[in-house]
Amino acid sequence: MKKVRVGLIGTGYIGRCHAIAYAQASTVFPLEAELQLEYLAEITPELAAQKAKEFGFNRSTGNWQDVVSDPNVDVVDICTPNFLHKEIALAAIANGKHVYSEKPLALNAEDAKIMYEAAKKAGVKTLVGFNYIKNPTTQLAKEIIERGEIGEVVHFYGTHNEDYLANPNTPLDWHCVKEKAGLGTLGDLAAHIIQMSQYLVGQDIKSVIGDMETVIKQRPNPNDLSQMCDVENEDQATAMVRFANGCMGTIETSRIACGRKMGLSYVITGTKGTISYTQERMAELKLYIHSDDPARQGFKTILTGPLHPDYKHFCVSAGHGIGFNDQKTVEIRDLVNGLANPTAKLYPDFEEGFKISRILDAIALSAQEKRWVDIG
Amino acid sequence: MKKVRVGLIGTGYIGRCHAIAYAQASTVFPLEAELQLEYLAEITPELAAQKAKEFGFNRSTGNWQDVVSDPNVDVVDICTPNFLHKEIALAAIANGKHVYSEKPLALNAEDAKIMYEAAKKAGVKTLVGFNYIKNPTTQLAKEIIERGEIGEVVHFYGTHNEDYLANPNTPLDWHCVKEKAGLGTLGDLAAHIIQMSQYLVGQDIKSVIGDMETVIKQRPNPNDLSQMCDVENEDQATAMVRFANGCMGTIETSRIACGRKMGLSYVITGTKGTISYTQERMAELKLYIHSDDPARQGFKTILTGPLHPDYKHFCVSAGHGIGFNDQKTVEIRDLVNGLANPTAKLYPDFEEGFKISRILDAIALSAQEKRWVDIG
Amino acid sequence: MKKVRVGLIGTGYIGRCHAIAYAQASTVFPLEAELQLEYLAEITPELAAQKAKEFGFNRSTGNWQDVVSDPNVDVVDICTPNFLHKEIALAAIANGKHVYSEKPLALNAEDAKIMYEAAKKAGVKTLVGFNYIKNPTTQLAKEIIERGEIGEVVHFYGTHNEDYLANPNTPLDWHCVKEKAGLGTLGDLAAHIIQMSQYLVGQDIKSVIGDMETVIKQRPNPNDLSQMCDVENEDQATAMVRFANGCMGTIETSRIACGRKMGLSYVITGTKGTISYTQERMAELKLYIHSDDPARQGFKTILTGPLHPDYKHFCVSAGHGIGFNDQKTVEIRDLVNGLANPTAKLYPDFEEGFKISRILDAIALSAQEKRWVDIG
Amino acid sequence: MKKVRVGLIGTGYIGRCHAIAYAQASTVFPLEAELQLEYLAEITPELAAQKAKEFGFNRSTGNWQDVVSDPNVDVVDICTPNFLHKEIALAAIANGKHVYSEKPLALNAEDAKIMYEAAKKAGVKTLVGFNYIKNPTTQLAKEIIERGEIGEVVHFYGTHNEDYLANPNTPLDWHCVKEKAGLGTLGDLAAHIIQMSQYLVGQDIKSVIGDMETVIKQRPNPNDLSQMCDVENEDQATAMVRFANGCMGTIETSRIACGRKMGLSYVITGTKGTISYTQERMAELKLYIHSDDPARQGFKTILTGPLHPDYKHFCVSAGHGIGFNDQKTVEIRDLVNGLANPTAKLYPDFEEGFKISRILDAIALSAQEKRWVDIG
Repeated sequence: MKKVRVGLIGTGYIGRCHAIAYAQASTVFPLEAELQLEYLAEITPELAAQKAKEFGFNRSTGNWQDVVSDPNVDVVDICTPNFLHKEIALAAIANGKHVYSEKPLALNAEDAKIMYEAAKKAGVKTLVGFNYIKNPTTQLAKEIIERGEIGEVVHFYGTHNEDYLANPNTPLDWHCVKEKAGLGTLGDLAAHIIQMSQYLVGQDIKSVIGDMETVIKQRPNPNDLSQMCDVENEDQATAMVRFANGCMGTIETSRIACGRKMGLSYVITGTKGTISYTQERMAELKLYIHSDDPARQGFKTILTGPLHPDYKHFCVSAGHGIGFNDQKTVEIRDLVNGLANPTAKLYPDFEEGFKISRILDAIALSAQEKRWVDIG
Repeated sequence: MKKVRVGLIGTGYIGRCHAIAYAQASTVFPLEAELQLEYLAEITPELAAQKAKEFGFNRSTGNWQDVVSDPNVDVVDICTPNFLHKEIALAAIANGKHVYSEKPLALNAEDAKIMYEAAKKAGVKTLVGFNYIKNPTTQLAKEIIERGEIGEVVHFYGTHNEDYLANPNTPLDWHCVKEKAGLGTLGDLAAHIIQMSQYLVGQDIKSVIGDMETVIKQRPNPNDLSQMCDVENEDQATAMVRFANGCMGTIETSRIACGRKMGLSYVITGTKGTISYTQERMAELKLYIHSDDPARQGFKTILTGPLHPDYKHFCVSAGHGIGFNDQKTVEIRDLVNGLANPTAKLYPDFEEGFKISRILDAIALSAQEKRWVDIG
Repeated sequence: MKKVRVGLIGTGYIGRCHAIAYAQASTVFPLEAELQLEYLAEITPELAAQKAKEFGFNRSTGNWQDVVSDPNVDVVDICTPNFLHKEIALAAIANGKHVYSEKPLALNAEDAKIMYEAAKKAGVKTLVGFNYIKNPTTQLAKEIIERGEIGEVVHFYGTHNEDYLANPNTPLDWHCVKEKAGLGTLGDLAAHIIQMSQYLVGQDIKSVIGDMETVIKQRPNPNDLSQMCDVENEDQATAMVRFANGCMGTIETSRIACGRKMGLSYVITGTKGTISYTQERMAELKLYIHSDDPARQGFKTILTGPLHPDYKHFCVSAGHGIGFNDQKTVEIRDLVNGLANPTAKLYPDFEEGFKISRILDAIALSAQEKRWVDIG
Repeated sequence: MKKVRVGLIGTGYIGRCHAIAYAQASTVFPLEAELQLEYLAEITPELAAQKAKEFGFNRSTGNWQDVVSDPNVDVVDICTPNFLHKEIALAAIANGKHVYSEKPLALNAEDAKIMYEAAKKAGVKTLVGFNYIKNPTTQLAKEIIERGEIGEVVHFYGTHNEDYLANPNTPLDWHCVKEKAGLGTLGDLAAHIIQMSQYLVGQDIKSVIGDMETVIKQRPNPNDLSQMCDVENEDQATAMVRFANGCMGTIETSRIACGRKMGLSYVITGTKGTISYTQERMAELKLYIHSDDPARQGFKTILTGPLHPDYKHFCVSAGHGIGFNDQKTVEIRDLVNGLANPTAKLYPDFEEGFKISRILDAIALSAQEKRWVDIG
């Protein structure tokens, strides 16, 4: 494949991030195929046309079906609200398109499985937008773990906490409605840290027990603020997990965690050292090595730099910083190079996306039934 | 009571901290009774005599029974290894002495209950050495919560992690032996953060489910390093808990958490704000208030100072710092003033100590049986 | 002007950053003119052609003179080594081109003055690449100061420290040679923090006294490592300054400051509060307001977000992070919109660049003559 | 000397800290002489009697002359307001007493010199209360430097900033009156960081140039708030210094630095590494070593522990924290052991105190005359 021709569906929050990443990707990275921004869909032709101009796409349409069936589109990039992922992905797959979907892959594991199996059967490549693992800093954490620098991982603690619904007066939005969002903070936020835990520990999660709570049980109706509506899914959740190799883990998530703006974090304890990270300081990693001189032990703050994965493509000096969209740019690089090379595999793909959905559903079930639930 | 005459049993690690606190208490605080360091017991008369001189005690003995029955002792201070707490406390209570015991109160909840009930029946006062809640900074956290500054508490995350057994070559010591220590890191470390969670949330823990692991399953025999011995209790544990009012909580503990030297920490999320603290920076508290101007929101780092509880007695300038032994000095002040005033209640007392033991046992049981366990 | 047609000269470290910023600018921001990447010059036609392809420029040349005289170029972007800034800028100005030059504007104030005056006389617009002031976080600091939130500024402490020459075995490079670099760390690094101090304090620096040192007096000859060459300019420097309104300031800079990867930082003390910042955590600002409740005073860590200047164009969620190149993208936005609007002024322009050069020269002179030197 | 019998004069802020330190010293440390709290003076016999009881002193008096001439006093501990240091010290010396004086030694270098020379001539030992250098953490910094771990020191940046006079409505107090305080923030605060710079760099300061400002020029008269009085000395000051070996240094001090509660800090850059410290986190030191693997470089946060100087006497576990008074306790240990051993030298003594006064005066002079001033 000499060109990767993209069809983008959806241009909201995350669609716009994709667009920024597409714009800079070929300047930042030496891509193995030419990236062509071919077709863009939005809910009206007018909005689609405007966004196509803004994002540099060749053509636009008010009908996403046009994109998934277009002969000049190689990969369909799904940035729509979550509840549409399944339908669009299946249509794209049916047309033999590769699919790049935002997370969560689907509203539940059942749907995710259908999507994963359809893609597998069709032989198309898939990628799910778990962009935080593309951050050079988290790639560095992965490298440190893989090289055995902290020994064998014995504990993973991870969070994805935000406070976008902390205010009880914030009206009900689609995140709070099962039909639109499926799970609450588990699907919206925890999907990231759970997937990241598997990436970093290098093991799948095999059993879980969760606890969760809808703290703010009603919110104002956005169409009539004097009326209250029920919040249909969880505001916060915790899960204890075990990875396939027996490693213990704890996952916490909340959308009402006052003060957390990008509270994705992890502390990974190994037999020889510990790594600590928070996404709010996305260009630094804390590393402790227990074999250091006991009188000089301590957590070291490593500023991400050109000696760490992918960073040098953004800047050749350490500590100069990377931003949110830069992670997405690494993801686009992976997409393009993965499609350019017939034998390459994209990661994290729909199989991983399905696994994450399965874990999320198991956490919800385990919380409801107050028991450990095995995965798969 | 015009005098509080102390009989100290045990002068190791924590006994020495008590001694330092006794030494400075009457200079730091205006005590409501005269503190008299009367009698000290150690395992030999010689060691006892030496320590009595070093710590400023009037008399000494190689037999702790002398102390618990001495007519000139008002309160028996138990700083022995954990497995002796019960026997000494019961003997002291039988002699009508008030008892000040280090934590954990006993090796299991059953023993703790016997001790608590004996003290209650005898009408003596009791105090357990959960000194971290006496830190002015944590008292400030309590004050902030009680005043409603962060709203209703909806989540408590707490840890007590250390790394004193992180090295697998460290020989087996008494912490690893059930008969001497009872539980592992749960009893040694988690006791603190669990008690602190009840103190800060202002609610008892009512149900728990734990998970735990003995990561390093064997250690060298301290008497013959070429032989390996089994480690008999857990190296790390996690528990999800629910407080009486339904508030969710997560507790984590480890004695093999590389890099944690005093890893007692908490993050307390409320409906209106969040508090964050780590004992490794024991004189600062992070506070977030969600009602701040959205463009000026953020966690504020408050340096403990004279406007916060008890601090001014150590220093009248903010940010000048307090140390580990200063917490113990506050505890001694509570002890002396609580004994000086007939109607005063000491806190945390044996009842609280028993409650903590009951929670610890429930966590261990829940981990073993892989199910939620209700408390009490 | 409906289009801004750029001629880029130089594609090294900073030229590449410009290219990334050009690539994403029109997606990130609603630009007021179309940005056209027209012409690119490098030292050979081959390299120029390769870079033009990589950076998306229409045409290329091995001769920078072609760019400055090309009728289809509106603005010449100078990313060459410092010693070429003057010649290229003057040639561009002579051809009536607007000029966007990297810092430092020139090797000394005399040259900078010639450049500034030439541009003024020719009526072309100019911009100097002091990109760190374009960071939304530093713009937020400016906003806080301008609104009087920290009262009147009474002290500015700023640093720009790095460690790229900390190792004495690093061979001599052009930074160490007067003819190529002019000043040492003052010109290379301090230029940024001095310009930033004027931006943030809102006052020009009016008198200075500096001290400086070439700590590593000789370095290996890069062409023959067995030979040593003299380092011709300063490794570290400090200056005390006074702003026009009498406000005190201190500037420190070093290129051998072990551990500083992007050690641009400032602490700005006002009569009512204090701001603290380090570029190594470029998306957070610390703010202290003295009128807070004395028992709740402390530095607040503000994560930059959509309520702060320019951030929302990168991401609509707070705390998600911005990177080095994002600053440059804001600079490009300023360039394009400033050129699109005939009456707009670019900032910081050659006049500001000249002022900074004049201050740098005064610091060097004051250090040599060991006396205060007045500016202008 | 088998006993060290102390005569304490003054029981305000710092006198109380001495008392706390005296109380715990013999429990914390194995002292080489018995510490006897013999005599205490305050401004009235009543206050003296009350404080003697509170602090555990044997006798008391309302007349400090009684203390300096008492045959049962070995060392006179001066905790009075600064302007009395000279008179009391000279009287004590005249009576052959050793003298332990709080800083600053005197209101100016001339007085300090008289005191130093009198002590030298009389052959008595002296100690000045620069207690921050007794902190185990700063002792660790000294150890790291002395062992060459950061190579040769090439730059010292130090601050002592507080905000106790930041509010312009705070009435004039003795700190602002030349006759009572001498210098302003230089004498009150900078004395500490300047002395610490000499201790840590291991070199005397040899030349200085300062700048300073009385930012709040008038304050309410404390006796009639409707009247304003002139502030007679500086609110903030900066100095560039050179140590005897040529090492550059910068000192900053302020008593109006909003947000700084205990803003004593240092950053010490060496040819092989860097140390960074702030007294507000008095139990942690940041250390960077440039020879670390470049991909794993970073500042390490070392928590002070039993492997570092003096810490183990307070607690045998790392990271458990030390407080302000613990520093003073180390100072008392140095006093007692230094007096117990006839050949021992106390440090920092009146000679060092005089040197610091001389540096402070030189900074003030250099600021006034706007020129570098050599020391000694």
